[in-house]
Amino acid sequence: MRTETDSLGSIEIPADRLWGPQTERARALFAIGSERFPPLLIRAMGQQKWAAAEANARLGELPLHLADPIRQAANEIIQGARDEEFPLTIWQTGSGTQTNMNANEVIANRANQLLGQPLGAREPVHPNDHVNLGQSSNDSFPTVMHLAAAQAVQFRLRPALETLATALNDRAEEWEGIIKIGRTHLMDAVPVTLGGEFITYARQVMHGVARLEACMPRLLQLPQGGTAAGTGLNRHPEFDTVFCEVVGTRIGLPFTPNPDKSEGMAAHDALLELHGAMNTVAASLMKIANDVRLLGSGPRAGLAELILPEEGLSSSIMPGKTNPTQCEALAMVCAQVMGNQVTVTIGASQGHLELNTYKPVIIQAVLQSALLLADAAESFARNMVAKLAPNLPRLAENLAKSLMLATALNPHLGYDKAVAIAKLALHEDLTLREAALRQGVAAEEFDAWVRPEAMLKPA
Amino acid sequence: MRTETDSLGSIEIPADRLWGPQTERARALFAIGSERFPPLLIRAMGQQKWAAAEANARLGELPLHLADPIRQAANEIIQGARDEEFPLTIWQTGSGTQTNMNANEVIANRANQLLGQPLGAREPVHPNDHVNLGQSSNDSFPTVMHLAAAQAVQFRLRPALETLATALNDRAEEWEGIIKIGRTHLMDAVPVTLGGEFITYARQVMHGVARLEACMPRLLQLPQGGTAAGTGLNRHPEFDTVFCEVVGTRIGLPFTPNPDKSEGMAAHDALLELHGAMNTVAASLMKIANDVRLLGSGPRAGLAELILPEEGLSSSIMPGKTNPTQCEALAMVCAQVMGNQVTVTIGASQGHLELNTYKPVIIQAVLQSALLLADAAESFARNMVAKLAPNLPRLAENLAKSLMLATALNPHLGYDKAVAIAKLALHEDLTLREAALRQGVAAEEFDAWVRPEAMLKPA
Amino acid sequence: MRTETDSLGSIEIPADRLWGPQTERARALFAIGSERFPPLLIRAMGQQKWAAAEANARLGELPLHLADPIRQAANEIIQGARDEEFPLTIWQTGSGTQTNMNANEVIANRANQLLGQPLGAREPVHPNDHVNLGQSSNDSFPTVMHLAAAQAVQFRLRPALETLATALNDRAEEWEGIIKIGRTHLMDAVPVTLGGEFITYARQVMHGVARLEACMPRLLQLPQGGTAAGTGLNRHPEFDTVFCEVVGTRIGLPFTPNPDKSEGMAAHDALLELHGAMNTVAASLMKIANDVRLLGSGPRAGLAELILPEEGLSSSIMPGKTNPTQCEALAMVCAQVMGNQVTVTIGASQGHLELNTYKPVIIQAVLQSALLLADAAESFARNMVAKLAPNLPRLAENLAKSLMLATALNPHLGYDKAVAIAKLALHEDLTLREAALRQGVAAEEFDAWVRPEAMLKPA
Amino acid sequence: MRTETDSLGSIEIPADRLWGPQTERARALFAIGSERFPPLLIRAMGQQKWAAAEANARLGELPLHLADPIRQAANEIIQGARDEEFPLTIWQTGSGTQTNMNANEVIANRANQLLGQPLGAREPVHPNDHVNLGQSSNDSFPTVMHLAAAQAVQFRLRPALETLATALNDRAEEWEGIIKIGRTHLMDAVPVTLGGEFITYARQVMHGVARLEACMPRLLQLPQGGTAAGTGLNRHPEFDTVFCEVVGTRIGLPFTPNPDKSEGMAAHDALLELHGAMNTVAASLMKIANDVRLLGSGPRAGLAELILPEEGLSSSIMPGKTNPTQCEALAMVCAQVMGNQVTVTIGASQGHLELNTYKPVIIQAVLQSALLLADAAESFARNMVAKLAPNLPRLAENLAKSLMLATALNPHLGYDKAVAIAKLALHEDLTLREAALRQGVAAEEFDAWVRPEAMLKPA
Repeated sequence: MRTETDSLGSIEIPADRLWGPQTERARALFAIGSERFPPLLIRAMGQQKWAAAEANARLGELPLHLADPIRQAANEIIQGARDEEFPLTIWQTGSGTQTNMNANEVIANRANQLLGQPLGAREPVHPNDHVNLGQSSNDSFPTVMHLAAAQAVQFRLRPALETLATALNDRAEEWEGIIKIGRTHLMDAVPVTLGGEFITYARQVMHGVARLEACMPRLLQLPQGGTAAGTGLNRHPEFDTVFCEVVGTRIGLPFTPNPDKSEGMAAHDALLELHGAMNTVAASLMKIANDVRLLGSGPRAGLAELILPEEGLSSSIMPGKTNPTQCEALAMVCAQVMGNQVTVTIGASQGHLELNTYKPVIIQAVLQSALLLADAAESFARNMVAKLAPNLPRLAENLAKSLMLATALNPHLGYDKAVAIAKLALHEDLTLREAALRQGVAAEEFDAWVRPEAMLKPA
Repeated sequence: MRTETDSLGSIEIPADRLWGPQTERARALFAIGSERFPPLLIRAMGQQKWAAAEANARLGELPLHLADPIRQAANEIIQGARDEEFPLTIWQTGSGTQTNMNANEVIANRANQLLGQPLGAREPVHPNDHVNLGQSSNDSFPTVMHLAAAQAVQFRLRPALETLATALNDRAEEWEGIIKIGRTHLMDAVPVTLGGEFITYARQVMHGVARLEACMPRLLQLPQGGTAAGTGLNRHPEFDTVFCEVVGTRIGLPFTPNPDKSEGMAAHDALLELHGAMNTVAASLMKIANDVRLLGSGPRAGLAELILPEEGLSSSIMPGKTNPTQCEALAMVCAQVMGNQVTVTIGASQGHLELNTYKPVIIQAVLQSALLLADAAESFARNMVAKLAPNLPRLAENLAKSLMLATALNPHLGYDKAVAIAKLALHEDLTLREAALRQGVAAEEFDAWVRPEAMLKPA
Repeated sequence: MRTETDSLGSIEIPADRLWGPQTERARALFAIGSERFPPLLIRAMGQQKWAAAEANARLGELPLHLADPIRQAANEIIQGARDEEFPLTIWQTGSGTQTNMNANEVIANRANQLLGQPLGAREPVHPNDHVNLGQSSNDSFPTVMHLAAAQAVQFRLRPALETLATALNDRAEEWEGIIKIGRTHLMDAVPVTLGGEFITYARQVMHGVARLEACMPRLLQLPQGGTAAGTGLNRHPEFDTVFCEVVGTRIGLPFTPNPDKSEGMAAHDALLELHGAMNTVAASLMKIANDVRLLGSGPRAGLAELILPEEGLSSSIMPGKTNPTQCEALAMVCAQVMGNQVTVTIGASQGHLELNTYKPVIIQAVLQSALLLADAAESFARNMVAKLAPNLPRLAENLAKSLMLATALNPHLGYDKAVAIAKLALHEDLTLREAALRQGVAAEEFDAWVRPEAMLKPA
Repeated sequence: MRTETDSLGSIEIPADRLWGPQTERARALFAIGSERFPPLLIRAMGQQKWAAAEANARLGELPLHLADPIRQAANEIIQGARDEEFPLTIWQTGSGTQTNMNANEVIANRANQLLGQPLGAREPVHPNDHVNLGQSSNDSFPTVMHLAAAQAVQFRLRPALETLATALNDRAEEWEGIIKIGRTHLMDAVPVTLGGEFITYARQVMHGVARLEACMPRLLQLPQGGTAAGTGLNRHPEFDTVFCEVVGTRIGLPFTPNPDKSEGMAAHDALLELHGAMNTVAASLMKIANDVRLLGSGPRAGLAELILPEEGLSSSIMPGKTNPTQCEALAMVCAQVMGNQVTVTIGASQGHLELNTYKPVIIQAVLQSALLLADAAESFARNMVAKLAPNLPRLAENLAKSLMLATALNPHLGYDKAVAIAKLALHEDLTLREAALRQGVAAEEFDAWVRPEAMLKPA
């Protein structure tokens, strides 16, 4: 252990740890839960500190002999080498100050170490005066939230959804010609194609990508430069602009300064908007997962129109059972996202005056939703969509016995008479053709009128 | 129109209306939405005012020549004769003050009218000094919330759930002997009975009743007597006790004074607790509705184990189609209740210091959930559960072809060998018996081991 | 009463009602709740039927002698003259079929009446064969959902938010020069301006408008033409295109055919996406409402920086009390919207195969949220924002005593020394200046460094 | 690596790992997220397997030479020595089968190892035939869910809430005599005591304990014994009873067999009911956290009636700032719980027929909520409640200037006259006494009538 001193007195810190007294005090004060920020957030913290040092150096605010080791230390965080120096859970102050100070302390200590100083030296690099120069937790942490969320969406969730859409589209093309019974209200209805069902799923997923896209204009606006309460006190007038340039270039996304810094500090509407889009994606994916498990139900006493992949993860008691486990994992992820939507809504709505203090729980939920949806979409594409097979005999059998082919009689006989034929068939256990003939329809008329392959589009 | 005057100046009120200036001003200031409190709440408002007058009269606080017309006017509200005198929507002040003042004004005007005074006289009966005597909106309105919620639960929801449980139990008894295929993960599994499925539904519903019961100890505690901020300022020391006696006797529920009035004014945990129980009921009912629609899917290309009642509400285009419309109505009600849960949670958690100011939206959601669940449960019992019929041929067919009867082989052959048999049957499209014999099981062994009727309980 | 007959037998209908047997049967079967669709939805139903008749007439599918009275009857619905002919609650089948059939029956009866036939004639205009020509409930009702939601957003919610943003901006301009204490974590922080706070609120609201806009590309796509299961069976090949032209022209919004009709029938992602945007608006407005109630708290023992309008709706027991009632009404509306978000999420995610069957509860929640937010935003703008006044003496007093002006010392003394000064002032109850001087800062330095008016932007 | 073979073929497993092919396949198939079950769940898995072996041994189903090493291996899990042998995330099949099989494999391998066999031997102890004897994932995993949830509530959450209630009560007793201004609608109201405010908080928390208690009758019912689909196939008739006895004795809670096993397998109403109670606790705690941050706001320009502990975790830019960080952490935890409520609601409502397949996400959310609330309640008690101090001068000052003392005038002057006095004081910036005297009240009357210390209870 080493001893450090701050305004509250001295405190013991594990000797080889890069963090400092603020982090150590926070560990003791917030012994709550085990939920840590994901690596993506910690690395975005590194990106923010790197870009701040870079911008301050360019603007002449930070001398190069300090900027250099700060950038190097920040780079180590970006590269994932310092994840274990961030020991705090997300259950801390609502501004993320402890994690911002954690980063300031780790970088200061590491920078000083690079300059030959012992840990805890607080000079020449000071965590607040230099690493946090021209910044506050209040603008830095929400900037990190935007950096992490934008990267999660653009580099993980969006490609994963595109992968899933491609997988769905591939099956749609293969199965374009498979005519099958449609179902409305879960009841037998007029014919559709299996390919058409998968086209719709693919479209839902691609609309999801468009929904994420629609959030980007506000997500790419960074509050960096607002400092303490949105005003920009104590920072260089051009700091916000230069910061966005350097961080945007490094990450590869067109970040811009939020023209009203307070909007991104006192509120987190942009992240709630994004989560609303992800919540919509979750609803789409839950529909798809449920449909696949319905169509794959069986293998003998269900709808059984799709054959599920045998993955070897069967029941612990029922031998040889195959279950739609990927559908279930995906549906559970969607349920989590739908719960996260409420967490983010409450968090985003309950800020007070100049600061929203639900930042950690908001970004945790946003990143969890993005990363889980991405992983689950890819897993579902790879392990379920790509491995499904149509059960052609069952598809044909289900189609053949449908009574709703009667809909094709409407234009010829009128709705009321078609009703009578369908009901007769149902109650007497006849085919529709048998019933129609009993009701006086000529066989050649019936055969001309009722052709499933002609019922798939407007006449 | 008549003109009345209060501290803000004069105001025009429709000449024959019993409400007064506070109500009229509120109508203008809160032109928001169209959602009114249900009659149950308005009548509970009458019960509260009646009981307050009764208690004050017994305690000698209110002379009988004023108490008499106040009680009569309140009785008219209780009997539903004055619903139209409550024109405000729920989107008013968060304490319900406008609706409490509406009641005070209506009763004062009506009481004075009974005493031969013109509307707007404000004497001898004054809305604040006499009708609201020893009360505040802050204790009266939450008392009304408890009165209404307790009645909705005990007199509407609970009996409705019992009706549904009885209907489910009736079918369970009828169908006790119908062996059918079970389904886990929506996939074919070992046998169960149709009666057993409905027993479980009935049990879920009756557990729901127990969950509602468990909330009553806190729901029956009334904050009446807290007056302005929970202290009891300006009321008789025994007012709370006598109030609970008289209102409890009249309504027929054992209300008691909340020993900490503030607990029932500054927070509404008891109502959130109750809504949590109703949310659980909604989850149970959604499960049941979904199961019935799954089992009733078809009539030919679905599971088709239950036959849905033909109710004549078919498709507007597909002739003769029968849909599980009662399941859908019930499921939609459940979705509403699940949304209301969030509304009540936010409302209940966001009070400040001595007063929660989400009272109207909380009680609106609580009563909507209770009344909708009650109506939907009864409708589902009457129009769906009572009219379902088992599709015996399909039930038998689905059972016969199941591969999961292989589970009965485990104790005899071990799990790994049973897997091999089930997989062989699936892949070669054999019956399980055929596959077992191919794998060297003797026919008489198979027939002795695999008997669905012996698989329904422990050996 | 008159007697009508359909496939289930004869039924009694009130003699002068325009609805028919399907509606009457639904009234009996769905005795659930009292929630009716808002007039906006009923009128959109009229728009849909009018446009369908118009399109079918143009395409030669519907002879003019039938199209004319159908259009006239539909127009009466559009103009609000037939609201009372829609007696059903939203708790019906999940496809909205009963309300679609209600419209078909009302229009058929009214059209036949115009042609001199008695009610119930079913000819020459038949509800299914002519009014519903080339349509299904499954494409018509979701089309109506989109028509109603798009109009609610564009013609009610969006202008209402713009009104609120203007009101906020007006105050921001007036109060641009009022320097005040900022608050982060609800604790005293560095100075900001009152105008700046209101600029941020206005920006949040205008971002809300942009969020609604971002949903329009998908909201304006109509599933009309999908008929029974998305295929377009039984309608003219150009019906969808012509329908969108005529309905778009009449309403004044650029509706287009959804290229995949199923996407708009089997799922309602577009409406959930829209509700996600409204949920974000609700979060913004709740933040604003809470801030105003915090700043207006008092009048003497609160923050008291804003003076609330005296609206005459005081306490029923505490004389002369003024409360932030508009903030409370707005916050309750936001809580309702946040609950509706869950209802719509569940509804939108739980469709099965070719049809989502949560349509009524989804559109009810979407329209309720849109209309309530619109009403509440306007009411808040008019009755609260426009009437607020700054409490200048208190604003000045709060600013003067702040310790966080110490932040201006950082660049001169370093963070650690500034901490010592601020803590000294707090613990010894000194002004910051007194504490700084005790710590060796020269008076002229302090006065040069610590100037609130210089702390409002970067140096 | 070692090679094992199952029905799907051979698979490589890390050589020294105790898990087997099912676990290894699941690792590859479910590359989703990083969320693992908490140790509490893994150890409850050990308790379940231990108790099953114990019960089977007592009933003569499992020979002692197999039961002994199984119990020993299970004990190692219970003691936390095998946490790292459970590598799967919660995003797996919805029945928890993979985690159940993981336990079966770990125990079988470890038991065989104890018997001198190499890993992967599958004999003499077989994961399905012996470790899972008389069990299915479908009854074992939900049994584990109940075991874990009951322990989390009884041994962690309940004591933590009692700790918090004690801390609140302690302050309430200390501060019983501190009269202060009450606030309703966040506006100045009649006097209350600081002790009274904390009494109410303590009562809310203790009601929370009662709410948890009310769930126990259903939480203590275990579905163990239902095996595959609730029927009990393949287990000893007394297995459920003996299992409950042995597991209940070991854990120290009175578990009983669920009389309808299906009720605890096909649905998870009992866990949703429990989460509803925890959601209510979260609402209570959020109210308390918000009140403390309001009362502690300042130190100079807020309400400032409570002095927050200086914990050294100040702003990174504003020197010497103290923030209510414990309130914020607690409020964030509550927001998480409120989101979890939706996740659990969706999961619990969406089971199909004989099995709910949202088990992992449900129990994860339930345990997260229980453990976070417990940790946060303790942290708040220790680091906030115990360290708060009343700001006596400010409390006195706020009380003295209140206008709502005018409420004491009502019984003497009537409500309308009291209004006039209060408004005069407000508008002319007078004390209430000055205003009353101007309105003709005699000084001695005023002094006799308006005494804050007499306004704290009924006259």
